[in-house]
Amino acid sequence: MDRRSLVRSAGLASVLAAGVAPAVHAQATIRWRLASSFPKSLDTLWGVSETLSKKLSEMSGGKFQLSVHPAGELVPAFGVIDVVQKGSIEVTHTAPYYFTGKDTTFALASGIPFGFNARQMSAWMIQGNGRKLMNEFFATYDMVSFDGGHTGTQMGGWYRKPIKSLADLKGLKIRLGGGLVGEIMSKLGAVPQSIPGGEIYVALEKGTLDAVEWIGPHDDLKLGFYKVAPHYYYPGWWEGDAHGNILVNTKAWGSLPAEYKAMFESACAYASKEALAKYDALNPVALKQLAANRAQIQAFPQSVMDAAFKATMEVYADLDAKNPAWRKIYADMRAFQRDQLLWFRFAESRYDQYMATRKL
Amino acid sequence: MDRRSLVRSAGLASVLAAGVAPAVHAQATIRWRLASSFPKSLDTLWGVSETLSKKLSEMSGGKFQLSVHPAGELVPAFGVIDVVQKGSIEVTHTAPYYFTGKDTTFALASGIPFGFNARQMSAWMIQGNGRKLMNEFFATYDMVSFDGGHTGTQMGGWYRKPIKSLADLKGLKIRLGGGLVGEIMSKLGAVPQSIPGGEIYVALEKGTLDAVEWIGPHDDLKLGFYKVAPHYYYPGWWEGDAHGNILVNTKAWGSLPAEYKAMFESACAYASKEALAKYDALNPVALKQLAANRAQIQAFPQSVMDAAFKATMEVYADLDAKNPAWRKIYADMRAFQRDQLLWFRFAESRYDQYMATRKL
Repeated sequence: MDRRSLVRSAGLASVLAAGVAPAVHAQATIRWRLASSFPKSLDTLWGVSETLSKKLSEMSGGKFQLSVHPAGELVPAFGVIDVVQKGSIEVTHTAPYYFTGKDTTFALASGIPFGFNARQMSAWMIQGNGRKLMNEFFATYDMVSFDGGHTGTQMGGWYRKPIKSLADLKGLKIRLGGGLVGEIMSKLGAVPQSIPGGEIYVALEKGTLDAVEWIGPHDDLKLGFYKVAPHYYYPGWWEGDAHGNILVNTKAWGSLPAEYKAMFESACAYASKEALAKYDALNPVALKQLAANRAQIQAFPQSVMDAAFKATMEVYADLDAKNPAWRKIYADMRAFQRDQLLWFRFAESRYDQYMATRKL
Repeated sequence: MDRRSLVRSAGLASVLAAGVAPAVHAQATIRWRLASSFPKSLDTLWGVSETLSKKLSEMSGGKFQLSVHPAGELVPAFGVIDVVQKGSIEVTHTAPYYFTGKDTTFALASGIPFGFNARQMSAWMIQGNGRKLMNEFFATYDMVSFDGGHTGTQMGGWYRKPIKSLADLKGLKIRLGGGLVGEIMSKLGAVPQSIPGGEIYVALEKGTLDAVEWIGPHDDLKLGFYKVAPHYYYPGWWEGDAHGNILVNTKAWGSLPAEYKAMFESACAYASKEALAKYDALNPVALKQLAANRAQIQAFPQSVMDAAFKATMEVYADLDAKNPAWRKIYADMRAFQRDQLLWFRFAESRYDQYMATRKL
């Protein structure tokens, strides 16, 4: 804030003229807008924006106002990057892998097939080079990124018929989420479909669609896919985690007083922890309901996992060859992941595996 | 910016000198002290206090000052609860399981043997009843608790000789951390030792101590135990996670302006995420160094795990019978854990297990 606008905003000109000084605020009121890629119905993801806004207001005594808007209210779900880049909206909450059409490198900020789990992604972003490298990339889109939550490992979707081997993916008409999975599924013989969210259920019912990937039990239950495509597979090998990003226009960020910058960063961490906690608390409740509704919960066969892994590595080799921005960040991410996988093999995995066998 | 510099910078000094009322602060300066249970040498845990202090200062423009003090500087590591309860120090950062001597219920705030992993603990605290129930308990000690970090699953410690079966625990002189593990290890035949941290290495070297449990690779490497007790076991079944708590005197908390309360809560979340990310990033690096130094990294035998599990459940049954505060919170924790274990068995575990087998 510059001095003149402070004086103006405090309305001092007229007061001074009259000879009395009013109270002076430490900070002027900031009004920003956030356009989310998520609808309100995805309450956990949408909740990140609401919590961020609430915390900013509380911390600033109501002086940092962030009005939050679900997908479609100000701009469409996939229009959010353009408006933040332009600066007509200051903030978005999105999953960057929606924007691989602009540059595949976007995907690395939210997670790639056979990438990190939530804890590992968090470690790379916070303590590794993840946030730093992604922000160098985002700077070319006039944006800076912050922690916007994690989903944890997602489910692999709903299928009308069982997937017993790779042959069952041939010609499979599947509706997929963002990122690189479409290209990989195509290599495996599936035929990814573009179809609006609201039309999925009917398409599955009619059989014009064979399968759909959504998120996990909590979000999936609401849409009722178990009624028309009861084979529910895990894991979503293309989403060991989906990391939400809060993206802010660089110029808007630069204009923010230091106190508000610190508030923003901490509020993002708070909202992020809350989102993952919500998913972890809500998913088992929904999973039990799905099981009660005869969803057939089953693991992808090893052969399908292995074929998917192989196809994925081929896609990454291609990307390494043709996209330098991708190659640089991907190399750093994989080096970090190798260490993570090494460490998680010991105490963490053994503990989790042991607990999975206990009756409590 | 404080009032005086604001007024000066606005060039108002002369106006005020002419008889105009001064500006009014949005917030007065708050000066609190934090006594940590952790020494600076445990840089990751100690770092929670430093980050909290830094973020509070940044968010408040220097008006919320938290001076942070490592164990022993103001009060001993295990004296922190008493001074915060009295209100002579406003804040501590500690692991509540150090205080099971006061009441075993303390342990539930940081984690118990065969309890949650870090993500599950976070979910219980934030989205389950964990923080709420623990705060009802902490209120009887005139304290309120906040998120103070996670270690992740710890290692099971350093042993001079291999642990091949339960028989190898008989008479084993072991130095253990906080919480209930001492009682459980005693049931298994071991003889827990009280010995100051600085004397452990020499005692292991001389053989007056057979084993020591510390934290994980990053913290353990610094102490060099691998040289004198090279058998390094996992997992630390008594610490699937150790959750740090920031505890604030209730009266001090009540006196805090709403803005500062919100800043405090968000800064805790930020510091907590950072601490776990640090452990996850640093542990694999240290693990590789330990392996290069010929640490014998190995899993506890299944029979030892099973005996420990059985002994632990007996201890919990006893506690349920004699401590109503424990019983109430433990029941809630276990119900939540059952759901967590159910859900983690599917997408999350399968994904982690698959990734553990990949060459990247």
